Amino acid sequence: MTPTITAFERSPDRGKGLARDMRVRWALEEVGQPYDVRLLSFKAMKEPAHLAIQPFGQIPTYEEGDLALFESGAIVLHIAERHAGLLPDDANARARAIAWMFAALNTVEPPIFDRALCKILERDKPWYEQRLRYLEDSIRNRLERLSVRLGDAEWLDGAFSAGDLLMVTVLLRLKASDILDEYPNLAAYVARAEARPAYKRAFDAQLAVFTAVPAG
Amino acid sequence: MTPTITAFERSPDRGKGLARDMRVRWALEEVGQPYDVRLLSFKAMKEPAHLAIQPFGQIPTYEEGDLALFESGAIVLHIAERHAGLLPDDANARARAIAWMFAALNTVEPPIFDRALCKILERDKPWYEQRLRYLEDSIRNRLERLSVRLGDAEWLDGAFSAGDLLMVTVLLRLKASDILDEYPNLAAYVARAEARPAYKRAFDAQLAVFTAVPAG
Repeated sequence: MTPTITAFERSPDRGKGLARDMRVRWALEEVGQPYDVRLLSFKAMKEPAHLAIQPFGQIPTYEEGDLALFESGAIVLHIAERHAGLLPDDANARARAIAWMFAALNTVEPPIFDRALCKILERDKPWYEQRLRYLEDSIRNRLERLSVRLGDAEWLDGAFSAGDLLMVTVLLRLKASDILDEYPNLAAYVARAEARPAYKRAFDAQLAVFTAVPAG
Repeated sequence: MTPTITAFERSPDRGKGLARDMRVRWALEEVGQPYDVRLLSFKAMKEPAHLAIQPFGQIPTYEEGDLALFESGAIVLHIAERHAGLLPDDANARARAIAWMFAALNTVEPPIFDRALCKILERDKPWYEQRLRYLEDSIRNRLERLSVRLGDAEWLDGAFSAGDLLMVTVLLRLKASDILDEYPNLAAYVARAEARPAYKRAFDAQLAVFTAVPAG
């Protein structure tokens, strides 16, 4: 059965890979699972039909037969559990890959996402400059540890996994800044991931949503 | 084999249930799995021996034979996958419970944790009051949606699950404020969870670490 995911009809980044449906698209491409997309306006995201499957009124969601899921991390894990290619077979290696999924979303993403929000929503606040520096220090603190752990390895723990997939989507939000380039092995790690054919297919599919819709 | 977890030797909240080892203790108590605890000073958390199993220098970790895991969410999921009691048997219900785990840590926790940090780190800043109100508005936005979804139900989706466990540990950080009480069904939800014998055992075990160590 072909799953259906939801995505922004008008993405804040104009389809450049930062909206969270990208994670789900990429995971589906990695495992070779076709999918349908239902686009939602910001208004539709807050209406009862969508809130019934996404209690917080966000995207993406994932619907497959009787199953309706929300939270990009949970959706990626669901896909990774049901198809080969995103989690190792060995039980311990699998648990560690899942730990990297949580680390990406709970330890590395918060200051990176806060920085992005701060730059949009707090630019005119009295605390803006100081808070931005504080967040960038927090980001560097995380990236320093991540860079040491990655070292010269290609991926975080053995073969490419759902942990790498989520970590890269988190780090990609820093591409417009200079912060990522302060850690050359992390910048190379992100570039390696972006070069994966599945990533490119997902990116192109997300971008096509925007380029196919008249700008407004 | 008895797993070993790590926890703060000197907890910032003095063992009142807010440190993230509480999640792991509670999960282990729910499934009836005994465990050992290794206490770490803030200095030891940043040393190579700990960084080898927790790349970001945090607690908790989970060691069991050859397996070393980090990230409280991943550890709770690992426990829930290996023991009965924290995830439903039905595959779709199980996937939804995992979605609530991610929702707790990725959607509900960030503004709640930011508020706690703000109250500690930004109290003497000129923008403190304004920023606190801003964060509390973000928290109310999440809690409003969560309250609507929970409605009159006992737990978020059927029987008590690892999703409820993580959500309650996130909401507990609001207990010292009045915010949680603005949503009576959420306050009652947290109280129901705190009344669980497994929660009480975990809370008492965490508190005993602090009360057994001379204050300093």
